[in-house]
Amino acid sequence: MSYTLPAIADIAQTALAERLQHKLDNKTKPQGSLGRIEVLAQRIGLILGTEAPELQSPQLVVFAGDHGLAARGVSAFPSDVTWQMVENFLAGGAAVSVLARQHGIGLTVVDCGVKHDFAPRPGLVINKVAPGTADALEGPAMSSAQCDAALRNGAALVQGLSGNALLLGEMGIGNTSAASMLLARLAGLAVADCTGAGTGLDAEAVQRKIGILRAVLERHAEARQPLEALAAFGGFEIATMVGAVLQAASERRVIVVDGFIASSAVLVASHVQPNVLQRCVFAHRSGERGHALMLAHLRVEPLLDLGLRLGEGSGAAMAWPLLQSACAILREMASFEAAGVSRQDEAPVVGVAPV
Amino acid sequence: MSYTLPAIADIAQTALAERLQHKLDNKTKPQGSLGRIEVLAQRIGLILGTEAPELQSPQLVVFAGDHGLAARGVSAFPSDVTWQMVENFLAGGAAVSVLARQHGIGLTVVDCGVKHDFAPRPGLVINKVAPGTADALEGPAMSSAQCDAALRNGAALVQGLSGNALLLGEMGIGNTSAASMLLARLAGLAVADCTGAGTGLDAEAVQRKIGILRAVLERHAEARQPLEALAAFGGFEIATMVGAVLQAASERRVIVVDGFIASSAVLVASHVQPNVLQRCVFAHRSGERGHALMLAHLRVEPLLDLGLRLGEGSGAAMAWPLLQSACAILREMASFEAAGVSRQDEAPVVGVAPV
Repeated sequence: MSYTLPAIADIAQTALAERLQHKLDNKTKPQGSLGRIEVLAQRIGLILGTEAPELQSPQLVVFAGDHGLAARGVSAFPSDVTWQMVENFLAGGAAVSVLARQHGIGLTVVDCGVKHDFAPRPGLVINKVAPGTADALEGPAMSSAQCDAALRNGAALVQGLSGNALLLGEMGIGNTSAASMLLARLAGLAVADCTGAGTGLDAEAVQRKIGILRAVLERHAEARQPLEALAAFGGFEIATMVGAVLQAASERRVIVVDGFIASSAVLVASHVQPNVLQRCVFAHRSGERGHALMLAHLRVEPLLDLGLRLGEGSGAAMAWPLLQSACAILREMASFEAAGVSRQDEAPVVGVAPV
Repeated sequence: MSYTLPAIADIAQTALAERLQHKLDNKTKPQGSLGRIEVLAQRIGLILGTEAPELQSPQLVVFAGDHGLAARGVSAFPSDVTWQMVENFLAGGAAVSVLARQHGIGLTVVDCGVKHDFAPRPGLVINKVAPGTADALEGPAMSSAQCDAALRNGAALVQGLSGNALLLGEMGIGNTSAASMLLARLAGLAVADCTGAGTGLDAEAVQRKIGILRAVLERHAEARQPLEALAAFGGFEIATMVGAVLQAASERRVIVVDGFIASSAVLVASHVQPNVLQRCVFAHRSGERGHALMLAHLRVEPLLDLGLRLGEGSGAAMAWPLLQSACAILREMASFEAAGVSRQDEAPVVGVAPV
């Protein structure tokens, strides 16, 4: 069964956008004084198709997978850390576990292709395409059939999720390499500009990493279409995330994009279906080199800029309360009329007793 | 009774700072990968004097006052909006009301000198020094005795607050003018660089505002000490906030600083007692011109940069979950050892069954 791209409608409705702006402008505050929170409120209103948006049962999904290329030393940590961190997520001890708990966000970990056999348990979905991708310097990280399988897994996963918001997280030693190559290829940028320290390489190791990625990009010079590049560079967690993003976009869920890796999945998805970006809220600008370039390529502005470079969905979880604030502003703030507050350049309201 | 400056100890303890850093470095994440959230965790740990900080019963106080200078047209809104917004805060319809409710933050409004008589009710503290400051172009905005009274009010207010965190908010038509003059005077900057649109002046009106502020600054050329400048330029809400900040700092409460006006109170307080800044977390960089300069003068980096320019404490409330996250990271995240996760450049952990 091959993967079928879902339809993703244009939701930039002028009429609703105008109603949302009118509603925001009538709240008791100087016009535009809530800055980017007003832009965020507009966006969420358009995604959910209402002037009174309410975020329900948010779900953070950590997509996990291993990378054949990791054996070449592109990461500061050994591949075993992928499965060890999956255990940590499930045990509640990782950053994203703590943050999801703080904000009442549901947390699901998906084994998209980790090189380890997990005991089944609540909160863990086994969607293992293979135990890690192949070495992308030898051939494609995954076959076209494997890529299709991962995309389908991502779509099916989202179909089974409750709520109307999906927060993207990931774990995979070596996956900044895949994200850097996807950025270089799809945005047409020099790989050296797209490549950073990941979990903590020193300057010399970053240079070695760049050399390896350049060789992989040359090895797959023909892989120029988004899904071809995805299969060539990997990983399974990114491919599964691409399927999830496309499905979530087709269902008009609010998609909260974490850092460099999650953004690379959105990059691929948006190169396939540009309307995906209408459903996305970019949580933060990562400290990982390449993320700022990726956000600029997508022409999006993230909410936070805190030098985070952890992944896992930690930045998405930290930005989550701002989305709730934006909705609360729309739903709960009083209008000038209702509160009896004078407008700019108006005479004071006379005879209106404020509640 | 004159105001007595509280003692504010140096809390930059090397030993605790090292223990906090060691604890952060042992959490299951690449070192430093939580970026500024780790710096924030350090700061809160130092303020509360513990490696396991817990924020309790946070209190947002909106300091409200009117400004004699407002009659000269330095604001886009009429002075009546100050009392109307106080009613709106108390009725639960303002942005800060919505945000405080969202985050479970206690909200108190203090009439520090509003030109209006409020009916007493829960959530409202009447600390009115006078019904609005005097016109600062004619004389000092307040007398030295009035300034003392406001400082004392702020100190007493904080002494009566529960919890260990104070979020600063304010309301006062005309108060960006006072903040701009305090910045210009105390930081030695040109008033034109310190002056912005406030609630929404157009370019021409901003130029008029600058002219007025320049004249006021010349009128009070001798007011160079922090508390002299405070009395000269006002307002009662800023002076009360200065007293609150000094008291909160002396009690080692976490002080969450909102935008331009709240920062101007911290500016004054820190020019009197520099250790105040050790207790402050700057919530955001406001869209109001002058705030970036003020933050640079204080050598602090705020958490958010969302183009907010509303005041009320809205930015402080929005940043609040990040403080909670920083504490949760310290208290709840697993260490490498506890989670059985391999460290950077280490061989995989052998024989440790992850929980």
